[in-house]
Amino acid sequence: MSLQFEVLKKHGKARRGKLQTKHGVVNTPAFMPVGTCGTVKAMMPESVAATGAEILLGNTYHLMLRPGADLVEKMGGLHKFMNWDKPILTDSGGFQVMSLSGLRKLNEDGVWFSSHVDGKKFFLSPEESMKIQHKLDSNITMCFDECVKLPASHEDVSKSMEMSMRWAKRSKDAWINRDGYGIFGIQQGGTYEDLRKISADKLREIGFDGYAIGGLAVGEGQETMFEVLDYAPDMLPEDKPRYLMGVGRPDDIMGAVLRGVDMFDCVMPTRSGRTSQAFTARGTINIRNARHREDPRPLEAECDCPLCKNYSRAYIHHLQKCNEVLAVMLLTWHNIRYYQRLMQGIRNALDNGTLDEFAKDFYTHQAMGDIEEF
Amino acid sequence: MSLQFEVLKKHGKARRGKLQTKHGVVNTPAFMPVGTCGTVKAMMPESVAATGAEILLGNTYHLMLRPGADLVEKMGGLHKFMNWDKPILTDSGGFQVMSLSGLRKLNEDGVWFSSHVDGKKFFLSPEESMKIQHKLDSNITMCFDECVKLPASHEDVSKSMEMSMRWAKRSKDAWINRDGYGIFGIQQGGTYEDLRKISADKLREIGFDGYAIGGLAVGEGQETMFEVLDYAPDMLPEDKPRYLMGVGRPDDIMGAVLRGVDMFDCVMPTRSGRTSQAFTARGTINIRNARHREDPRPLEAECDCPLCKNYSRAYIHHLQKCNEVLAVMLLTWHNIRYYQRLMQGIRNALDNGTLDEFAKDFYTHQAMGDIEEF
Repeated sequence: MSLQFEVLKKHGKARRGKLQTKHGVVNTPAFMPVGTCGTVKAMMPESVAATGAEILLGNTYHLMLRPGADLVEKMGGLHKFMNWDKPILTDSGGFQVMSLSGLRKLNEDGVWFSSHVDGKKFFLSPEESMKIQHKLDSNITMCFDECVKLPASHEDVSKSMEMSMRWAKRSKDAWINRDGYGIFGIQQGGTYEDLRKISADKLREIGFDGYAIGGLAVGEGQETMFEVLDYAPDMLPEDKPRYLMGVGRPDDIMGAVLRGVDMFDCVMPTRSGRTSQAFTARGTINIRNARHREDPRPLEAECDCPLCKNYSRAYIHHLQKCNEVLAVMLLTWHNIRYYQRLMQGIRNALDNGTLDEFAKDFYTHQAMGDIEEF
Repeated sequence: MSLQFEVLKKHGKARRGKLQTKHGVVNTPAFMPVGTCGTVKAMMPESVAATGAEILLGNTYHLMLRPGADLVEKMGGLHKFMNWDKPILTDSGGFQVMSLSGLRKLNEDGVWFSSHVDGKKFFLSPEESMKIQHKLDSNITMCFDECVKLPASHEDVSKSMEMSMRWAKRSKDAWINRDGYGIFGIQQGGTYEDLRKISADKLREIGFDGYAIGGLAVGEGQETMFEVLDYAPDMLPEDKPRYLMGVGRPDDIMGAVLRGVDMFDCVMPTRSGRTSQAFTARGTINIRNARHREDPRPLEAECDCPLCKNYSRAYIHHLQKCNEVLAVMLLTWHNIRYYQRLMQGIRNALDNGTLDEFAKDFYTHQAMGDIEEF
């Protein structure tokens, strides 16, 4: 296997690790900002790096539609194309085909679908997805899988999972090994423990550089997700990174780290930056709220992002009211920085053996809500 | 007077100067990016500074509506509010009242108008405008004036100009002098040389820290504008800066510098950044054009902005097609940088006595058009 992963410390089920790729190290637990179309929305890549992010997620589905994998390859790969020289993980396209594309025809082979952009027909299969992710030059390739919406019957989830495992094998076979690159399998099985076990065993048999927990955060709610996370990560190899796809809110991440998850991605910090939502240690703040109109204080006094260092809440409120792009830029930066500070705090706590205190403090502050009105 | 201005060199009518304000020096000829609502759209203020801009323009009309001058004052003034510690010039609001607001009632006193945002009623007069610009803590306050649309009859322009001159006197009287701050008068008179002369004489009699040439770039065309600029700047004091309001495109600026103008502002570079237009030494480029789709070359090889240093035309084209905010951010940055490089080039040429060669080279390259298709 071509990615080096090391678990440096453990605290309960939580793990502090280090993943080595051709484009650099990823310290785990890690949060990956999402760069859907070859850009983390409203951020310069150097700003993304300045937040502490060590790895980005790119979307195979979006990039295959626009600008196309061949063009990205011709331009020297995704790193060069988007001016991001740190590691990149790409999803397989499977999830977005299900959630975004128009007419689909799915069988054992793969899936035909029409683009949500212009209706053009495309085909994705394990082999196609591997080819595209190879062209993108993704450091971490994800297996092509099918993802069913929850709730779903045991039979439906089982059938889908079994096909995803056959696709996992085809993905692995089609993936081209290179130094500093790797491929992750994706555990399926919905909320059924027996299916999660079968899926994990099949993936372990194939053998991957890392293991994702898929099919969660699709509307089942945090309680149900945590029930699955109480057992699912334990089924995966100890010595490989575990990645919870599409998760999540800060307390989702905190809870998942405590259950043994190492990697995360989510559009939450970037999307929220476009809808006036700011993440803080004291919960989510809507900066459009009138209470901020004359507030000279920073959004979060403890934060070192440009928004918190250089501007008042009143200013950001004003920018939002005027629909200024800078509001989106600054809020996105703050939100990504908040996520990275959270991950850094978790990693430090793991390094120092103080994760229990850190988690307690995290929950206490989240529950307090925003500072008193000015 | 409280602003220090020095003409360092001359070449024909063109002047190389230095304007000293409380918030720092402005080297002229200077271009001021426009920060309408307390932000240069899609730019961090530190990025604006990185382009070489030494002064910004803020809009009294927009800021009085949102967030209101009292709030800006309470937050420590516009510099602090928007995190820009270099000089700021504010217009008087007069022009925007005419061009943007709803129902207006204008008389000798001033003008009642309704906000284009929410229809609320506001009043602006010379005294009100001075008060607002004072609260904003603007380094350079502009007189409140009336601006007629061209073409207009000699009589209409004359009547309007005469009132603007009475308003200029009231503006000067109401303006509060402080060290490192100043007030500029605005010459009116449309395209009528005799009226321009009367206006200039009246302004000189009142006495200002600088003199703007107003009422141009309102649809009269470049040829007509240059005809006016062939005589209008000469009517203004030699030892004070001359500011051509709302101008312009690169060749407008080049032509105006050669006719003795020192300062400029325009939404062109920022607005164009939002409509796929890029300014280059070889003319304007629409990056949405299909010819850029697979072009690995930078937009402008000679440019040192992040867009040109780090990205291909293909990438910017892709971002534009996907309506990504980063396209607007990078194009705006490039355009402002292009304008600042142009001004820097003009200043260097003036310093070195090579303005004729510079201008010739400028026109030659502009006429060449974009580089050959890839």
